Amino acid sequence: MEQPEYSNLSIGDSIPSLTVGPIDRAQLALFAGASGDHNPIHLDDAAAREGGLPGTIVHGMLNMAFLGRLLTQWVPQQQIQRFSSRFVGMAFPGDEVTCSATVKSLEMPPGENRVVLDLSAQAQSGEVLLKGSATIVLFD
Amino acid sequence: MEQPEYSNLSIGDSIPSLTVGPIDRAQLALFAGASGDHNPIHLDDAAAREGGLPGTIVHGMLNMAFLGRLLTQWVPQQQIQRFSSRFVGMAFPGDEVTCSATVKSLEMPPGENRVVLDLSAQAQSGEVLLKGSATIVLFD
Repeated sequence: MEQPEYSNLSIGDSIPSLTVGPIDRAQLALFAGASGDHNPIHLDDAAAREGGLPGTIVHGMLNMAFLGRLLTQWVPQQQIQRFSSRFVGMAFPGDEVTCSATVKSLEMPPGENRVVLDLSAQAQSGEVLLKGSATIVLFD
Repeated sequence: MEQPEYSNLSIGDSIPSLTVGPIDRAQLALFAGASGDHNPIHLDDAAAREGGLPGTIVHGMLNMAFLGRLLTQWVPQQQIQRFSSRFVGMAFPGDEVTCSATVKSLEMPPGENRVVLDLSAQAQSGEVLLKGSATIVLFD
């Protein structure tokens, strides 16, 4: 992986975006198996409706994993210091999710270069799913 | 799911903890399939060693998903407003991960009751994997 160079970054820069999907039910089943979150609202439309939802919803943590992939396609996982997100909207099977990030600030504590990114995940409908932030360490 | 009651919570209270594992390689493959993160450092010991790691490591986002499960076993996903984590250590296949949380603060902006939790995920070795925070909304 070619590393981004700290000295080439400016506030407001975008990093390469990532579009995932359409999300299918098999992916939700795989995520249920990986995480152990077998809540039927992610697997069964009828159960989701009983829970007051319009139908099966994508695990919020799977949406967050897509946002994580945006980061790990930019830098190795070990350089991600901190990752946070607000859960703003819900995604459904069939949705495409686009993850994007811009440089919010550049910090240089002794020994490391830190990039703070503003993150966003949005469905093709325009619905915002996640709004987040990540702190990445870059080495010279 | 029985809902926690806001009026019964105090700062410092623990919520029910969650232990996951031992994590096996099939789980990492499932997570790769769900998230689309097929980086071989999570699937192939030789590739991980070439990347300077002692062997295959668990996806940081899968550890974070376990911490997310700690939350969704306490309240429905829709009540999780915000979730953040620092990536402190790495987990390996065979590790057990224990996720725990304590009440850090209780806030009552108009119309909702908010609980801020301090989160931690730790391997059976004592290695801290994640340190995080979550904001949960409880309704009366």
